[in-house]
Order: sequence, then C-alpha cells, then structure tokens
Amino acid sequence: MAVNLSAPKPSQPYPIAGVRLGVTEAGVRKAGRKDLTVLLIEPGASVAGVFTQNRFCAAPVQLCREHLAQGAAVRAMLINTGNANAGTGEDGRRRALRSCIALAEKLKLSAQEILPFSTGVIMEPLPLDRIEAGLDAALADAREDNWLRAAEAIMTTDTVAKAFGKQLLLDGTLVSITGISKGAGMIRPNMATMLGFLATDACISPALLQQLARELAEASFNRVTVDGDTSTNDSFMLIASNKARHALIETLDSANGQALKAGLLEVAQQLAQAIVRDGEGATKFIRIEVEGGKTEAECRQVAYAIAHSPLVKTAFFASDPNLGRILAAVGYAGIEDLDQRCIDLYLDDVQVASCGGRHPSYLEEDGQRVMRQSEITVRVLLGRGAAMQTVWTCDLSHDYVSINADYRS
Amino acid sequence: MAVNLSAPKPSQPYPIAGVRLGVTEAGVRKAGRKDLTVLLIEPGASVAGVFTQNRFCAAPVQLCREHLAQGAAVRAMLINTGNANAGTGEDGRRRALRSCIALAEKLKLSAQEILPFSTGVIMEPLPLDRIEAGLDAALADAREDNWLRAAEAIMTTDTVAKAFGKQLLLDGTLVSITGISKGAGMIRPNMATMLGFLATDACISPALLQQLARELAEASFNRVTVDGDTSTNDSFMLIASNKARHALIETLDSANGQALKAGLLEVAQQLAQAIVRDGEGATKFIRIEVEGGKTEAECRQVAYAIAHSPLVKTAFFASDPNLGRILAAVGYAGIEDLDQRCIDLYLDDVQVASCGGRHPSYLEEDGQRVMRQSEITVRVLLGRGAAMQTVWTCDLSHDYVSINADYRS
Repeated sequence: MAVNLSAPKPSQPYPIAGVRLGVTEAGVRKAGRKDLTVLLIEPGASVAGVFTQNRFCAAPVQLCREHLAQGAAVRAMLINTGNANAGTGEDGRRRALRSCIALAEKLKLSAQEILPFSTGVIMEPLPLDRIEAGLDAALADAREDNWLRAAEAIMTTDTVAKAFGKQLLLDGTLVSITGISKGAGMIRPNMATMLGFLATDACISPALLQQLARELAEASFNRVTVDGDTSTNDSFMLIASNKARHALIETLDSANGQALKAGLLEVAQQLAQAIVRDGEGATKFIRIEVEGGKTEAECRQVAYAIAHSPLVKTAFFASDPNLGRILAAVGYAGIEDLDQRCIDLYLDDVQVASCGGRHPSYLEEDGQRVMRQSEITVRVLLGRGAAMQTVWTCDLSHDYVSINADYRS
Repeated sequence: MAVNLSAPKPSQPYPIAGVRLGVTEAGVRKAGRKDLTVLLIEPGASVAGVFTQNRFCAAPVQLCREHLAQGAAVRAMLINTGNANAGTGEDGRRRALRSCIALAEKLKLSAQEILPFSTGVIMEPLPLDRIEAGLDAALADAREDNWLRAAEAIMTTDTVAKAFGKQLLLDGTLVSITGISKGAGMIRPNMATMLGFLATDACISPALLQQLARELAEASFNRVTVDGDTSTNDSFMLIASNKARHALIETLDSANGQALKAGLLEVAQQLAQAIVRDGEGATKFIRIEVEGGKTEAECRQVAYAIAHSPLVKTAFFASDPNLGRILAAVGYAGIEDLDQRCIDLYLDDVQVASCGGRHPSYLEEDGQRVMRQSEITVRVLLGRGAAMQTVWTCDLSHDYVSINADYRS
C-alpha cells in the first residue's frame, strides 16, 4: 500500500525532446512482466551520474563508472529488473559488458557509449541470452512519450510506477523536466537511489550537470531511507538533451540556473519521496526534522537513528504514541556530549517532551491523534546550535516482513 | 518462541552465600505479575557495574552511577519492571531517589547504599506509591535460593526466565557463580545489557571486580543485538559476596584469576545469548563470525551491519538463502578500502561466495539446508588481516512487529 502516492495524482511526465524510451517483456526472471528498458539519447546531450557507495557495488555500476570516466558521450542506457548482477564477481562484469556490446551493435555505437543498469536478486548470473533476445522489441517500442511505461518496466517490489514532471520558462523558452525512479526495499541511498533517471531538454554545461547531479542526489535520494540497507546497485542519472532553445547554463549563479535547479530538485524530491511512500509494507510517510544541532552531520545522525529504529517504526505502524522510543534513539545516535535536559520533541504541532522529559501539558490523546495520520512530522530540537536536516522514511509493518520473507519465491 | 533456550535445560542457578533475593507483585503497570525485586547483599561484599552509553540514560542509571561514585558499599538493589523511568527529566530522578530512601529506611541503611533499576515503558512517571507499598512483601520473600523467581520478576517481553550458574574449585574451595538477565527488545547493548545481575561468593578485590565487569560485558552483553536499539536502561552488575574461603584474587595474572574469569564469562555469555535466543519474535539464533579484518573494530562493524540488516534478518526468518543480502551488508558496513574480490562467505560448512562472487560449487539446496536450521553460523572472511570478532543475533519475524506494535496495549 503506497502512502498518498496515487492520489493526489503525480505530476505529469512530459516528453523530453531528444530522449526516447522503449520497453519489453524479456522474461529476465519471470514471464509476463515488463523488465527490459532502453533509453536512447540523441547526439549533443550531456549525462551525469552518481552511484552507490556500497563497496560491493554491482557489475553494471562498475561499468557505468568506467564508461563515464572514459569520456565518450552517453548515447543509450540499458536497464533490466529481476536480476541485480551484484555479488557476481568477474563473470558478472563480463555479462554486463556483453549486454552493452549487443545493444551497441544494433545501434552502431561503441560499448563505451552505453550505460547498463540492473536491479533485482543479488548473486545470481545475469541471463544474457534473454536480455539480448529482448533488445529488438525494446528498440521497436522507443518513443519520447514512453516515460510512464518505462517507470513501470523498472519496478521490482514497487506497487506504483514513479514518474514526475515539471515545466518552466527560461528566458521565455519552455523547458521540460521528467524523472522516473524505482525502489521499495534495500533503500538507504548513499549518493543515489536504487534507480533514478531525471531528464530535461534544458541546455546545461557538462561540468555543471555533474555538480547538479551530486547536489540533487544529496538533497533528495540521499535523504530517504526505508530499511537502512544501502543497495549494491544505486544509480541516479541526470540527462540534459540540450534541445531547448535558451542560452547554455554554465553556473548556478544566475536566475536561469537557480530556476532550473529548483525545478529539478522539486522533481528529484518527488521521486525520492515516492520511493518512501511506496516503501515495502509502508502504511505511513514520516518526515523527521532535526533542528538545533551543532552541525548538519549530527542532525542527520539523529534523524537516521530515529528513522532506522525498528521500535520507532513499529510504533508508527501501530499508531501507538510510544514516543519514549524516539528519545531513546536520539540518545544512542552517537552524539557524545548530548545533554538530554536540552531536548524538545514535537509530533506535528503537539509538544511531547521538553527539557528531556514529558512536556507538562502533553496528553496521550493528542499524541494518539497525530499517530493515526498517514503523514507525520517528527521534530527534534537538540538545543545545541543552528544546524538542521530533514530525512524522510516510513513505518515497519507486517507486510515488510512478508514481502522480504517471500521476495524470491 | 525462544530458540533452544528451555531445552537443553539451562544450567543451575546456585544460591550465592551473602546474597538474598525477594520478589512481589506490586502492580507497577499491570496486576497479577511479579514486577518488584529486592536484592540484599551482606556487608563485606564488593559490587561493580557498567551502564548504557545511551545519552538519554534513565533516572535509575543516573542514580546508580552517582551512588557507586560516592564510594559507599552497596547493600541492596531495587528492581522494577513495567516502567523504565526514562525520559522523565528531574521528576524521574526524584522518584528514583525516593524509592531508594523508602527501602533504605526499612533496612536502616542510607539511600546511597541502594542501587535502583527500572525497565519497561519510557516517558511515563514511576508509580512510587505502588513500589513503596510492595517493599514489605518483597523483603519478607528474601532468600538465597530465590534466583529463579527473581529472573521471572525482571522479565518484560521475555518469554523465558534467564538464570544460569556454574561452580568451580579455587585452591580446593568450591565457588559458585549465578546470573540472571532480562531483555528481548531494544537490545543492542553498549556497555551492558538491558538488565543483567551476576553474583559469586568468590573473594575478589574491588578494583579487579570493576575491571572484570567491563571485560565480561565487552565479551558477552556487548556482542549481542536483537534490533540495534540501545536501551536507555542497560545495566550489568557484578557482585562478589567474598564469602568463599579462598585467598583474595587481586589480579587476572594467576591461575585462580584466570579460572574465575573463565567461569564468569561462561555464565555471562549464556545470559547474553539467552537474550538473543528469546529476542522478540526470534525463531533463529544466528552467530556472525567475521575473520580476516585489519582490526577488531572493523570486524565488529561488518558483523553488526549484517546483524542489523532487516533484509538479512527477514531472509533468515523465511529460511530463504537469499545470501546476496549478506554481501550487500558487508559492502555498506563502512570499510572505505574494502575490496569485494577478497571476500569469502560461508553458511555453517557451506561455502557460498568466493572472491566476491558465487562460489563455483555452491548449490542453492546446500544453502537451503542450512537456512532451515534453528542455529546458523555466518562466517565472512575479509582477507585483509588477522583480526576476528563474533556477534550473536536473531531473525526478524512477523512476531517482532506484532510484539512491538502491541507492546503498550
């Protein structure tokens, strides 16, 4: 059950000039589901990406890094679900490269111009024959207005396809932004999400595009967590097709740069939050705001301690205002010189704790009222400084256990 | 369901000369359950303790630290369940002290000679009147052979009382060791467990006793985790009644010191492992051994990343050899220069992965066979050095969610 994801309706995924997508059912793991996607990029575009910090990063992530480092223009992406091609050693690298070569031959490109992405079960061999057999159908399906179908084709345990868009004017020129993402479990991105693709027809210099990819990921995908498990395959790609007819943007120190970044961030945050709203078994969407820290890093430490606590997450699932569990998580977050007498805690507008103890006017029924909501803001005031950070997460339900106990069967 | 805890039968909790325990039903939170324990110590004994590192430590933990620091001999302990007296601010400290004063008056002691312990719900006021009203009945019940009843009286969500004992000869003198512990959720001790009390009639110098308390906790309670939540109330107390008639032990550099430490450690590890075996919702007992690290600290980092991963824990619950999840956890454990090509993974005697990929001879049915067992050893070889560490944990089941979604109701 995704939390408030289908209604209100997600924003429109606009076609992006110069970017076409095609999908097919290749039967990578199971028959009868869209599981193979090609994303084709016209010459003249720029591509930037950030990838998982997991040291066990998957073979396709290794190849993406190498191909981007070699500096060839990226002309296509190849995305499969059903198999992560992670924990597969040298053989996994060979299979990922072979899939790039197969697509490159059909497109008359070099393998270095292709980026591969995989998501699914870890430590099983990528079924290369099925992927190669599916390429023609995926290519025949390629269209600029295919973003929603591609969002469906990259789903694994997701229950809702995640596609968002936005349009804005730069110097009077209409610019479009569209993104898709997937991911519902093994979500604690660290430099990227499971898979996220964000494209715009805006004209952006390659150097700025890479800077933007990092900054967008940091403020969106790197601020969500479902279960604290950083995936082996996290990849976030930013594509600028450079088709819109406005002056090239080379810095964020301009009105156009600022407007474009704000638009991209809005879509990136929608995509990232959609992953949490559709988190495995999620019934509630939780925003954790930590204020009054000495540094942003310590605010994040506290926010993630709360977000990852199974006890806090099950209390949200139960709508039980067992809020001492939040204080306990604040206490073990790792701030050595934290003074509990300075801590205040709010649940939405309800002050629960002050000076490290129960707030004198706090009533259980007020906490209960907020806990029953499907969206809840936890606000912790550390009383140590002026830094603040926000993290988005979800609750831990029976369905999370069911989904992950049954995932491979 | 506790994993292999009742059978084979736990070792005998021997009476310890000079230590008496009494319990009663004080109705702290619910009627009809033993929830108040007094532990009375004859003059001449030594007491040492280690406490939670949670910065939101509970009022009784604060008082324990202060009373021990003041250097008065500890003559009694007062333990209640049903209320943790944590997240209760100044009022909580006053109530904890009042409970010590009430017991001190009945025993003609000073409040500083009493140590208070509480466990249960956080952020609710300690019901002082009920605790004071229960003291006479608890004191009337005090006997040296009451360890098992005390183990029952300190239970919260535990399903099995945890009491173990051991006897050994020091210079021909029979020495007894007995310990009790409780704790099933909010378990990732950091310097101690939820509540653990270990007593011996051996004669140990106070300085050595404090050193032993730290070393025992480090190798037992600090190596178990259920859900990664470090409690506000963790306390591990070591009592030497000094009643046995052997020469005082002042150092571990002696045959007697070594023998006594080995005996204490055996009981402490049984108590600590019992907490995991009775972990909330646990159906499996998992031993995680990480070898070949550069440092013990990095071995622990990897072991805890595996032990805390909800995806790994749900796979164990499902008996599903979805073992790539273990590799993913190794990868995000935080070792910056980890080379995945050096990693080997075993499940009991089955080699699952070698050189970072699936082992050539690994068969799913072999992994499946081990995953069905109620006790499983995960062995990760990092191939970086000679350090090793072991951590004990359990799986994550539907019952964990049920227990923690319903705990207060």
